[in-house]
Parts: sequence; structure tokens; C-alpha cells
Amino acid sequence: MFAAVETPAVLIDLTLVEQNLQRAQAYADAHRLALRPHIKTHKLARFARRQVEIGAVGITCQKLGEAEVMADAGLTDIFLPYNILGQAKLARLKALAGRVRLSVTADSAVTVAGLAATFTDAGAPLAVLVECDTGMGRCGVQAPADALALARTIAAAPGLRFAGLMTYPAAGKAQAAAAWLAEAKALLSEAGLPPAIVSSGGTPDMWHAADAAAVVTEYRPGTYIYLDRYQVAKGVGSLADCALTVLATVVSRPTETRAIIDAGSKTLTSDTLGMDGYGLVLGYPEAVITGLSEEHGTIDLSACPARPAIGERLRIVPNHACVVSNLFDRVVLVRGDDVVETAKVDARGRVD
Amino acid sequence: MFAAVETPAVLIDLTLVEQNLQRAQAYADAHRLALRPHIKTHKLARFARRQVEIGAVGITCQKLGEAEVMADAGLTDIFLPYNILGQAKLARLKALAGRVRLSVTADSAVTVAGLAATFTDAGAPLAVLVECDTGMGRCGVQAPADALALARTIAAAPGLRFAGLMTYPAAGKAQAAAAWLAEAKALLSEAGLPPAIVSSGGTPDMWHAADAAAVVTEYRPGTYIYLDRYQVAKGVGSLADCALTVLATVVSRPTETRAIIDAGSKTLTSDTLGMDGYGLVLGYPEAVITGLSEEHGTIDLSACPARPAIGERLRIVPNHACVVSNLFDRVVLVRGDDVVETAKVDARGRVD
Repeated sequence: MFAAVETPAVLIDLTLVEQNLQRAQAYADAHRLALRPHIKTHKLARFARRQVEIGAVGITCQKLGEAEVMADAGLTDIFLPYNILGQAKLARLKALAGRVRLSVTADSAVTVAGLAATFTDAGAPLAVLVECDTGMGRCGVQAPADALALARTIAAAPGLRFAGLMTYPAAGKAQAAAAWLAEAKALLSEAGLPPAIVSSGGTPDMWHAADAAAVVTEYRPGTYIYLDRYQVAKGVGSLADCALTVLATVVSRPTETRAIIDAGSKTLTSDTLGMDGYGLVLGYPEAVITGLSEEHGTIDLSACPARPAIGERLRIVPNHACVVSNLFDRVVLVRGDDVVETAKVDARGRVD
Repeated sequence: MFAAVETPAVLIDLTLVEQNLQRAQAYADAHRLALRPHIKTHKLARFARRQVEIGAVGITCQKLGEAEVMADAGLTDIFLPYNILGQAKLARLKALAGRVRLSVTADSAVTVAGLAATFTDAGAPLAVLVECDTGMGRCGVQAPADALALARTIAAAPGLRFAGLMTYPAAGKAQAAAAWLAEAKALLSEAGLPPAIVSSGGTPDMWHAADAAAVVTEYRPGTYIYLDRYQVAKGVGSLADCALTVLATVVSRPTETRAIIDAGSKTLTSDTLGMDGYGLVLGYPEAVITGLSEEHGTIDLSACPARPAIGERLRIVPNHACVVSNLFDRVVLVRGDDVVETAKVDARGRVD
């Protein structure tokens, strides 16, 4: 299996990537939702370009460093849903705004003040969306009235433009998020600040994005391009749709029921996302990846009728595809059983 | 705090590094144990060189790619305690053996057969240690009699040399491991194959390494250079000894009791090592890092008498220093509050 590829390696199936991208774009088109994919999952310029080519309105980056890489690669419309703070980052943000159509979020007057001090040109204002905590418990203003207050602060700054609302809803709580956003939209509209964009996201709930289409105008899925064990558990797709797999080698069979592979937490990460085990071994559905150290994965084969031998290669669907992407300088692009090429992960490790 | 450093960043305090290295070397010297540090924790050639300079007999690398980087950097004695399998890796191993004093492990006849087919020069045999599972439940032969059998297979191969025994004991089970190794050593000696090296490892038990010195000749600690929250919990050192910290910025204070920082699992990793929370916030001992998404960390400030403001910088001692090192292309070397320089993490991301 992929004999020329040294393990551990990340394989990306281009046929499945295209299928996953097209499926989401078709859904967004059918429901008149703008699609703005999150590139954190793949971090590859070629896939970002393809997402836009087939209909995405632009891309989403979580870090300034990722956005800079994507701008270098020719992406022209970038949303950075993050509170950008501090002189160094604000200067980088300003430089970035000079070369792409840029939008950001803020959830506090402190963030808005920094943006307002940096962006002062009323002729080319920076688009700022208010981040809303609709139940996730992460960033975001806590109530619709707070969204209105912050929108007013943004609108009052000459170099800023209030562009709308943004949320990342808690998984399975898209309805509550929609109600929250609808209330905020009503308040804002009443105050003369109707939100042009209401942006939501999350692959787990993407096939229900249209349920909120009365208020949500834009959707930001990330993991949908690859899918993973968690998304399969959430019913977003099937195991056969998972475009990213980890290729690993059995390096030891110390007991009848134990296999050790050369993929540990430095490959699969410790992310469990609440599930048991650290990934699914294709072809050995009864195998359980019970533990990881950095360079070893421990597999319990007790329930397996057939068991892999030392030297056998296994393909593993990881729990969480995005974090695996960030661990590899290069990924191997394949179609079915054929290697197409090896690609540099352009925005890997852009931490700031 | 470190105003010129953009966050998130990894800070390494050189004074503490030197202190941690010297302390371990002094202990090893006092107990006549050879020290062979594991470079996975730091992945920096300069620290590997320093470890050898002050007395280490050589270094330990977990992956061939790491060993290649260290050989390029001038390290001359490398132990690779891993089952190396497959033609591509065996060819790389052979090339590496041509330029450094190299030793490896095997825990199966399959691994030994691959090594024996690759290394055929009886004039310059490859040193192979038998990996022993003394309770960890990872790789390794399962019983002392199996160690003898595999040692015989190694000794029978003209291009290989049986060099000893290697184990990574389960944390806190160093005594049981020592008993296992003593039994194996007796068997081997009786059979005319006395193990020249008996190598053990693990920072958590390093101050008890001498308890097993009747059988153990060499110790391979890794995390001791930096220490981390887990090692502090294990009593290896104090919080003040932790040389690696993560510098993060508070980007949001959505509620009275919640802070969001710009360090998530892409910085701190999801490793809990069985502990609650994802790191310790220096200066805010009551703060609890309750959750991480990739680019956000969520801190519960409920129990904090004083609470950080938006824009404030925090220093965090991560749960597990080694995995943090692997996420950053560069780390910031400091002494106390002064930045010394920024250093490339030489062996970062060497997955295979």
C-alpha cells in the first residue's frame, strides 16, 4: 500500500476532496448561502483557490499568519474572525488590508479601539463584524444588546465599517444561535445598522445551515473538505468520504492482541473530541487505538478476527483532521491507490 | 512582558535549561550512570551539543529524521530506540551509520532480519539492543527468556552486534522494571551474552534512577531539560524550574469570569497526561485553562482575586513541553526577562 511513501504520512485523496467541496457548494447554492470556507483544515493554497473557483465568496483564516500566506498565494477575499490586538499585529493587519479585501471581527471596545487607531481612512474603511457568543462559551458579546452597542462603536469610527455579525455556534445548538442572531439583527435594523452579513460556521451542523437561512447569510465550514472520525460520528458524511488518512506501519506486535504503529500523538494528536480511541483503522474495524505516546500508537486487536503483521501498513482516519494537517510539512496527494504528488502544507505552523 | 515578541510564542529560559542539565548530569555522575538525553523534548542542535559537552555519552532520538538532523549538526553518538523497518528507512539507517556511532533497538525477529540484511559488514557491525516491555505495555519483548532468544538472533547475524537491553519503564514502576532487567541480564550472562548496556529512561522517575543502578548502566531522560506541569506534579522539579513557557495574549474577556487567550491546541496541545486543565497560568494560580480549540484557550477566572485584562500577556507552563516544541518553527531564547535570540527548532516536524 503506497509502497514508495515513507510512514507515517498524511494522504489526501483528491477525488474525495473535490466531491466534498462540490457537495457543500451545491448545498450552499441551493439555499442561497454564501460559502466562506475555513482554510485551517487544509492550509493548502491550491485547495483555497479551488474553493473560491467553484463558488466560495472568499476564505476564512483564523490567524494573521495564515491569511498572509493565503494572500501571497493569490487569494483576494479573506475574513479573519479574530480579535487582533497589539501594535505589531495591527501593523500586519493594515499591510494585509492593502492587498486583499479584508474583514475581521471584534467582541470588545478594546479591540475596536485598536482597529480604529490603525485604520483611519474613511475612504477605505476596514469591515468589522461583531463576534457573538450564541452558546459556545468562547469569544463574543454576550447579548444582542451588547452587539448593538459594539456595532455603534464600530460605526462611529471613521476608518471602520460595521459589516455584520459572526458566530461559531456550539455543536448542535444552531437553532438557539439563529434565535440569538435574529434578535440582534432586529435590534440593529431598528437602530439603522442592519447587518449586511450574518456569518455562522461549523462542519458538524453544515447540512442544517439552511434551517437558519432566515437570518444567516454566510457559512464557514472547515473540516468538510476532508471530514474525519468526529464528523462521521456526527453524521456529516461516511467513512468512505474521508479524504485525509494517516498511513502508518506496524512496527511491533509484542503480544497476540497488541500492535504498535509508528504514528503517535506527533501524528494523530491527543484530540479525542469526546470519543474513545484515537482514530479508526481502515480494514480492521474492530481494532481500537487505545493509547498514543509521541511516536508510538498502541492498538488493541483483541476483537479482530484477522490481525496485521509487523511491517504491514495501515490507513487510519484520525479523530480530527485539522490538527493533523498542522503537524506535517508535506502531505501526499493521491487518487485512490495512486500517488499524484507531494505538496507542501503552505500555512502549516503559522501560529500568530 | 516581552513586548517585542508576538504571541503565541514559546519562551525558553537559558539559565533554567543550564541548571536543569547540570543537575541531571551531576546526579548521573554521582551514581556512575551514563546519561544519554532524549532530544525529542527540545529538538535543538545547540542543546544536544551542550548535553554532550557537559558529560552525556551521546543522545537519543526517537525518529530517523531527528537523528539525521542531529548528525548534520555534528552530534556523533546517536541511539535510536525504535524498530526500523522497510527498505527506505533501512537505507537511511545504513547511510547514518556511515557517519555517526549509531545504535538501535529491535523487539522482534522481523526487525532483526531487516537489520541483518542491511548491515552485513562484520568489521563494522551495527549495535542492536533488545527492547524490553517491563510493564509499559508498548513495544518490547515480553519476558527475559524472549530477550535472550532475540539477543541470540542478533549475535548470530555477522553484521550486527548485541549491545544490551533497553526499556522505557511505566511511570512509577522503575523497581519492577529493574527486577525484570536483572533477570534478563542473569540469563544473558549465563548464555555468554552479557549486556554491555542496560538503558532505561523517563524524566518522571529520574531522581530514582540510581535505585536500579545495580543493573541499569544508562539513563535517557528527555523532558528534564525543560520540565513542565506534569513533571512538577510528579515532583521532579518546581514550577520555578520550568524552562519552557508559552507566552499568550488575552484576546477577549467575554464575561467577568472568562478569559480567552490566543493559545489553543495548536500551541498547548490537547495533552492532559491525566491532569485537569491544559496548563498553569503563572501569576494567576487560581486560573484554570478549562478548554482549548485550535486557536483559542478558555480560562476560568472564577477563583481569581485579580483578573487579567484584554491585551494582557500571560505566561503558561504547559502540561507537556515536548509536544509544544514540535508545534513551533522557532522558539524565543530568554534569560529572565530579557530576550537573547530566536532559534529555529532544528528537528521539528521530523515525523519519519
